[in-house]
Amino acid sequence: MNNFTFYSPTYFVFGKDTENEAGRYVKRFGGSKVLIHYGGGSVIRSGLLDRVKKALTNEGIDYVELGGVKPNPRSGLVYEGIELCRKEAVDFILAVGGGSSIDSAKAIAAGALYEGDFWDFYEGKPITKALPVGTVLTIAAAGSEGSGDSVITKEEGMLKRGAGGEALRPVFSILNPALTQTLPAYQTACGATDIMAHVFERYFTNTKEVEITDRLCEAVLLTMVKEVPRVIEDPNNYEARANIMWAGMVAHNNLVGVGREQDWASHGIEHELSALYDVAHGAGLAVIFPAWMTYVMKQDIIRFAQIAVRVWGCEMNFANPEETAKEGIEKLKQFLTSIGMPISFKELGAREEDIPLMVEKLGLGENGTMGSFMPLTAKDVEQIYRLAL
Amino acid sequence: MNNFTFYSPTYFVFGKDTENEAGRYVKRFGGSKVLIHYGGGSVIRSGLLDRVKKALTNEGIDYVELGGVKPNPRSGLVYEGIELCRKEAVDFILAVGGGSSIDSAKAIAAGALYEGDFWDFYEGKPITKALPVGTVLTIAAAGSEGSGDSVITKEEGMLKRGAGGEALRPVFSILNPALTQTLPAYQTACGATDIMAHVFERYFTNTKEVEITDRLCEAVLLTMVKEVPRVIEDPNNYEARANIMWAGMVAHNNLVGVGREQDWASHGIEHELSALYDVAHGAGLAVIFPAWMTYVMKQDIIRFAQIAVRVWGCEMNFANPEETAKEGIEKLKQFLTSIGMPISFKELGAREEDIPLMVEKLGLGENGTMGSFMPLTAKDVEQIYRLAL
Repeated sequence: MNNFTFYSPTYFVFGKDTENEAGRYVKRFGGSKVLIHYGGGSVIRSGLLDRVKKALTNEGIDYVELGGVKPNPRSGLVYEGIELCRKEAVDFILAVGGGSSIDSAKAIAAGALYEGDFWDFYEGKPITKALPVGTVLTIAAAGSEGSGDSVITKEEGMLKRGAGGEALRPVFSILNPALTQTLPAYQTACGATDIMAHVFERYFTNTKEVEITDRLCEAVLLTMVKEVPRVIEDPNNYEARANIMWAGMVAHNNLVGVGREQDWASHGIEHELSALYDVAHGAGLAVIFPAWMTYVMKQDIIRFAQIAVRVWGCEMNFANPEETAKEGIEKLKQFLTSIGMPISFKELGAREEDIPLMVEKLGLGENGTMGSFMPLTAKDVEQIYRLAL
Repeated sequence: MNNFTFYSPTYFVFGKDTENEAGRYVKRFGGSKVLIHYGGGSVIRSGLLDRVKKALTNEGIDYVELGGVKPNPRSGLVYEGIELCRKEAVDFILAVGGGSSIDSAKAIAAGALYEGDFWDFYEGKPITKALPVGTVLTIAAAGSEGSGDSVITKEEGMLKRGAGGEALRPVFSILNPALTQTLPAYQTACGATDIMAHVFERYFTNTKEVEITDRLCEAVLLTMVKEVPRVIEDPNNYEARANIMWAGMVAHNNLVGVGREQDWASHGIEHELSALYDVAHGAGLAVIFPAWMTYVMKQDIIRFAQIAVRVWGCEMNFANPEETAKEGIEKLKQFLTSIGMPISFKELGAREEDIPLMVEKLGLGENGTMGSFMPLTAKDVEQIYRLAL
């Protein structure tokens, strides 16, 4: 196990009707003038936004609002939010929505206390301070409610970049599983795939002697394997929704990934897919992950056999562990298909002829590589895309 | 799943040589005048105390010190610590040691900011503020490094009471597994049993639909089952020590227990054993837990079969799940014996004739009960003690 630090200071408020406590928690964490930041549509239609406003008003907390966050949140709205915060002397940002609203809120929070261009942070400048951010989560997926990460897309050149730091960890996050019951099955499944991907990206490591985090990773995956089919079958299953929602936080606040090298190459490989075809991140991951696993499996057959046995319930083939490893990947594919996810370019609507373009956009050049479990050259990535056809 | 809140704001610093960063973290969390609080003996002999002092001095941080914490820490030393904090204008308490030193430090931290008698908190008064506490942990066991709990014994009448609250969560905890390599096998095994007990106390619940926390509990137990025998075999196995140390934190910061009713009766039943015979808490738990499980098993045979299959690797007896449940308890006993723990009154040196006294001291009276998984009357507890003979 490697040395590590772990810091997850977010106050989590979990369960039915908890959005009504938003005002109480804003107050507890020092907010007096709030920017409510959200997407639109369902948050308004469902009455959630009104309930949150009422919760603030009940505590005598003033607010302004900024809606319009889109999936793959854009820098334009971030600039608008920063300006609004300054004009209105906002001292707390409350995101109401999913990962996009939360990521956008984090960008505004950092930018509001910075004299330069907030994009500097997304080009690598460390974030030392930010306004406090709270969240009311509406989809189990990105894990942004418990992480210090934010991904923003700059309109100029459609650059998608991430920033992170302790200052971006939400001070509180309200998780009411009932709010996710209205999500369409496809979005639910995309979110579930994203959660599982966050675990895979930590699980496949070259770091030895990491039993505790292996087991914690497997705990999250086993939960997903049991609970996701239940919500696809019955969207109103509160209990299954609750297990998935907490699993989504645990998958990405890094508790299950500490002390080990992680490999986020597949996230990058997927980004080119969703950038080119505007498909959901989770759907892209469902296509990329089995292909990536098939390609890198030989790096550590035993680790792939381990997940096959422990998570997918395969019987260990002691004479030929590679068969077990492959069987695990097959089971993952079957699982993804069963919850309605695409697992190929064809099902996703992606085209073979675009592969060279996607590889080129990754910018690896002649000798560059990405990832750590098995460092991948441009040629490797091309083969992974082809395995996904 | 029940509604819950979860708040674990401790900054964890994990790995080799991390005690040398103590000064940096005290500074980060606002300390300028520190009380170093510890037991004695090994902390001094090993040079750890000197390294911690040097780490503080390197950052220009002043300190006073108070050693002498004993297992089952006493109120007398807490009063002494409170007085010292006031006299020396201490603004930060750094515990160097195990659960006893940390619990004592927490009591001093709360008492130093309170005008009344600190014991009020251990009689039920809520703790609203405390000096910040940091820890340098030397044994994986109590989980106090990541919890808001503290247990203190009052000399008058030897009253053992617990207090808790968010204000008592350490602001940082330094966990260096190498510091635990010098522990005797017996103490290591006692600590491991305490860690496993913290999971059992959360696992056996009447709350339904808690797959994510079930799986996380099992993850910790599976890790212990693998790693503990390795450190008993080779005390210098850093990697196994590391997995156990992080498992010990995860077992008790309540991540694995949120959203479910918990049952701490067995902890109380054990306390009478360790109070009467001055045996280690972990050893007492090894005696009590299998007996408690045997007695309460019928409350939920399937849950006991589940842990037998998932943690102890038993094959499910579908025709007779009770057999599987019993087999799991047998495997636990075998495991405890294999790591050198007692599993009976006889092995512990406890006496059958003291049972009525221990039952009486629990103060349940005619109709009182303890625990929630299966509420236990005085007669039930007596039978549990007898099952442990």
